[in-house]
Amino acid sequence: MRAKLDAVLSTISPVDQSLAPAGQAHLDNLTKPQGSLGRLEELALQLYLIQGGKPPKADPARVYTVAGDHGVVAEGVSLYPQEVTRQMVLNFLNGGAGINVLAKTAGVELFVVDAGCLGPDFEAHPNLIRAKVAEGTANLAKVPAMTREQCLKALLLGVELADRALADGVQVLGTGDMGIGNTTPSTALYCAYLGLDPADMTGPGTGLDKTGVSRKTQVIREALKTHAAVVAGGDALDILTALGGLEIACLAGLVLGGAKNRQLVCVDGFISTAACVAAWKLCPATADYTVLSHASAEPGHKYAVEQMGKKPLLDLGFRLGEGTGAAVAMFLLRCASAMYNDMASFASAGVSTAD
Amino acid sequence: MRAKLDAVLSTISPVDQSLAPAGQAHLDNLTKPQGSLGRLEELALQLYLIQGGKPPKADPARVYTVAGDHGVVAEGVSLYPQEVTRQMVLNFLNGGAGINVLAKTAGVELFVVDAGCLGPDFEAHPNLIRAKVAEGTANLAKVPAMTREQCLKALLLGVELADRALADGVQVLGTGDMGIGNTTPSTALYCAYLGLDPADMTGPGTGLDKTGVSRKTQVIREALKTHAAVVAGGDALDILTALGGLEIACLAGLVLGGAKNRQLVCVDGFISTAACVAAWKLCPATADYTVLSHASAEPGHKYAVEQMGKKPLLDLGFRLGEGTGAAVAMFLLRCASAMYNDMASFASAGVSTAD
Repeated sequence: MRAKLDAVLSTISPVDQSLAPAGQAHLDNLTKPQGSLGRLEELALQLYLIQGGKPPKADPARVYTVAGDHGVVAEGVSLYPQEVTRQMVLNFLNGGAGINVLAKTAGVELFVVDAGCLGPDFEAHPNLIRAKVAEGTANLAKVPAMTREQCLKALLLGVELADRALADGVQVLGTGDMGIGNTTPSTALYCAYLGLDPADMTGPGTGLDKTGVSRKTQVIREALKTHAAVVAGGDALDILTALGGLEIACLAGLVLGGAKNRQLVCVDGFISTAACVAAWKLCPATADYTVLSHASAEPGHKYAVEQMGKKPLLDLGFRLGEGTGAAVAMFLLRCASAMYNDMASFASAGVSTAD
Repeated sequence: MRAKLDAVLSTISPVDQSLAPAGQAHLDNLTKPQGSLGRLEELALQLYLIQGGKPPKADPARVYTVAGDHGVVAEGVSLYPQEVTRQMVLNFLNGGAGINVLAKTAGVELFVVDAGCLGPDFEAHPNLIRAKVAEGTANLAKVPAMTREQCLKALLLGVELADRALADGVQVLGTGDMGIGNTTPSTALYCAYLGLDPADMTGPGTGLDKTGVSRKTQVIREALKTHAAVVAGGDALDILTALGGLEIACLAGLVLGGAKNRQLVCVDGFISTAACVAAWKLCPATADYTVLSHASAEPGHKYAVEQMGKKPLLDLGFRLGEGTGAAVAMFLLRCASAMYNDMASFASAGVSTAD
């Protein structure tokens, strides 16, 4: 499986920046002061570069909401009982969750993926991909969260999700997560990959109080100590194996697969960004293919984002996950593509240019 | 006409805050950690309060892009020739401008209004409202921009636009502007209404260089000096008459009309926010009915926004006007309403609540 992953990594290359001037010239000739649609223009150019200099397309767009459970909840890091992961998957399939409503409103497809929920397989459902790698992770405070094989399997599952989407013509992928306790592995990954401090990075997640956050910070410190040799070693796959989660590894694979397939990946919030960092550490060229949909309300997110040199599109105080921020941002990608393709030029509209 | 305006102002009242706990309780019972959809939850509650405690609706939504010309362009405050106002109105009617593309992508209606363009009436068009109050304003650096009668007429035109929308069932109004030179009256209004300094508030508009911004600052200082007695008098209508514009007064009227009709008004950028400030000074209760769609890239916008005690929804570096930011933000209002109405509750979805 390592060879299979390496094959994916080796096919990812940065976008061809030599195409940028032509795309920029097109944007500058549309009937608006140059640059006056701000980040929509950046998004249009990013799509243009990713898609090899063709008129950018932002549709179809698809969110994968990937679920997994976490052994570290044994340490008391979450406010919600662990069975909520499973209950929320059923809620997704019944159409009642935040991501259902926002994906529908944004006009994007939604698939739910069981990458590692506790308990038996879910019943078949047209919007469910049953691909359980394991029944949850081990307690990363004490032992590696995954085996090497599990982590590779979850990564390759993500690549496969991107490939399935490609086969359906999907241009833009959205990442979504569900997993009670998963701000803890995400925070540990940020600290390990980016050298950030657990005290800055640990937040309330679904709503821990001060004492809860303090306990969670201790758990993350313990995890980083347990896996100190792995962290010091700096191997991206080893770190993901030790400190990640099955849904997180799957989402990292989705980023890799998207970059391989020249699909833009619209990254959701705190958990998805951690997966994005893992993908970036595995393959820096993925950075050209990702956009951060929103600034998470989870306080550590801003430090991670800074280190990535990215600026989130939205800042709406979201801290739900599931892909909710990605779904909303996909609408902005559609706006960007429509602007590029459907606006008149100064010449075609007979509008005078600036002095 | 003053009596007619007063009649409008007297029917505007703040929303009934006693409804808030019921709306909040509904939001808190949806399957997500409380508050985890951030500003969407605030928007849903605002719609709920505006609409008197019924399940909030964000559709139909309609943008009015209101055009007018400005005598102050004689002072060299804009990079674009004045005929661009007229050319852009034709571009709006042909569907080639930024607002056309974004309104269509957002699924909102668009009407163009000639409130005061130079030149003869435009030819009839199903999406054009021909309501020219005058052929542009006078040069506000030297004399009042409008007569009292023109200003009242433009304000009442805005109220009428809100009423027409109400007759069509429109729940959310969007403000849009087109008028070469109109960052100058907008800046002058901010300074006059909010006591802000022209040096902080004057920006490049469509793209002035440093020298251009400096000249524009001088023009605004001169205008404030010319109308010093009016500014010192503090009468909201007098200030709008002296320093405003026909499209700006019309948009202020649209805000008043929306508040009267219990429609939420989604306010576009720098120019529309100045109109919103005028409406707020005429009638403070309008604040309950407005939302600022985005933080304009025009540097003075943030100071005005601060004084208003509002926080823009988006920050995408837009500085185009036309209603482009409003159209994009209307999608967020639709998301908010869908969340409120279509998400499952913890009980209905069988999801466990937090400990």
